[in-house]
Amino acid sequence: MKLYDGGVSPNPFTVRLFIAERGGLSLEVEAVDLLNLANRSEPYLSVNPRGEVPALRLDDGTVLTEITAICEYLDEVAATGPSLVGQTAEQRAATRMWTRRVDLEAAQRFIDWWRGSEDADAFYRGHRVTQSAGREANRRIAEQGFGRLDQDLAGRSFFFGERPGLADILLFAFMFTMKDAIPWLNPPDRTNVAGWFTRMSERPSVSAAQQPVRLIHASAGGSGA
Amino acid sequence: MKLYDGGVSPNPFTVRLFIAERGGLSLEVEAVDLLNLANRSEPYLSVNPRGEVPALRLDDGTVLTEITAICEYLDEVAATGPSLVGQTAEQRAATRMWTRRVDLEAAQRFIDWWRGSEDADAFYRGHRVTQSAGREANRRIAEQGFGRLDQDLAGRSFFFGERPGLADILLFAFMFTMKDAIPWLNPPDRTNVAGWFTRMSERPSVSAAQQPVRLIHASAGGSGA
Repeated sequence: MKLYDGGVSPNPFTVRLFIAERGGLSLEVEAVDLLNLANRSEPYLSVNPRGEVPALRLDDGTVLTEITAICEYLDEVAATGPSLVGQTAEQRAATRMWTRRVDLEAAQRFIDWWRGSEDADAFYRGHRVTQSAGREANRRIAEQGFGRLDQDLAGRSFFFGERPGLADILLFAFMFTMKDAIPWLNPPDRTNVAGWFTRMSERPSVSAAQQPVRLIHASAGGSGA
Repeated sequence: MKLYDGGVSPNPFTVRLFIAERGGLSLEVEAVDLLNLANRSEPYLSVNPRGEVPALRLDDGTVLTEITAICEYLDEVAATGPSLVGQTAEQRAATRMWTRRVDLEAAQRFIDWWRGSEDADAFYRGHRVTQSAGREANRRIAEQGFGRLDQDLAGRSFFFGERPGLADILLFAFMFTMKDAIPWLNPPDRTNVAGWFTRMSERPSVSAAQQPVRLIHASAGGSGA
């Protein structure tokens, strides 16, 4: 397996963090220079014509994209360590429910808010449809989403279960990598989200996942990379 | 298991169609009157405080929401018939990749476009944050998404594999239930999407899933309900 990795930006960092938390994985890594838009030209477009990073090339040549699909695949094929998706159908269902919630209610919304900014226009240089007209609406929806998630996190360490699962990893990776670009992302008065964010920040996986890597051997248990 | 069902609207219809295609399921059904916003008041809010329909109450009392989580759970616990998610880790990964693609690139975008309309404001009566400012941006992103999906469907019957999977079901259910409200949804010049839509329309499951039900016994093989 080979991971095409884009470093500490929302989608690639989600997969890095998942790998570091999951353990039991060994895969080759190729860095794609997102800052210089290497993902929008050859040879990368032959790997993923959509130009998205990360992508995972399987041993049979299939190229997987979409971070939740990549994470679930890695979870299934990891050699050792407990699943981060779930051991039972009920646990897996809860993980998938929370993952889609944080994705649609919060993560995709604040990313879209950022995509409508002048920073994003400058970054993408015409490689993406911008939607500046919708950015304040996205902010309102994201704030509403975070409000709900703040209630959901009351009395809980993580969205589901006693350790971070895919939902925690996805939302944290998106917030962590975008916190400097989005000033309203993590206000102290959303106390449960803020506490959860601090808790996630202290995971050894978060520093592990920020290191550049060429080859990942993540042992089970969360120290990673 | 008990399904709280909302009839022929995007999210509930996705789950209905999945059940009809999947087969091997038996579950009690309670209709929630979406048109009169019964999902936004008690007793339904005690079932799902977010007010979303559908929801699936498991035998242990847990309430599952989020259509992809519900569908994957039903797929796992169905007594007979082939999985619609996949038999191998690679097939499941492909299903999840395509499902998230159609969801983020197309389905959520045209739904958001509709949510910005006066029709939607009238329908929701203040129960939802509207985002009319962003609707044309959502249309542009959806059109771009459909353009890509049209290329992806070239030479294929379905997004992945030889029969409709979760990705096909989700996108079709959203398009089918919104086709009268969204005039630009399925133009004939997106020939591959249009052909796929026709192919999906002809599935026996589509008529089965439009019938009101109180109790679902779906036998394996797609005739359903």
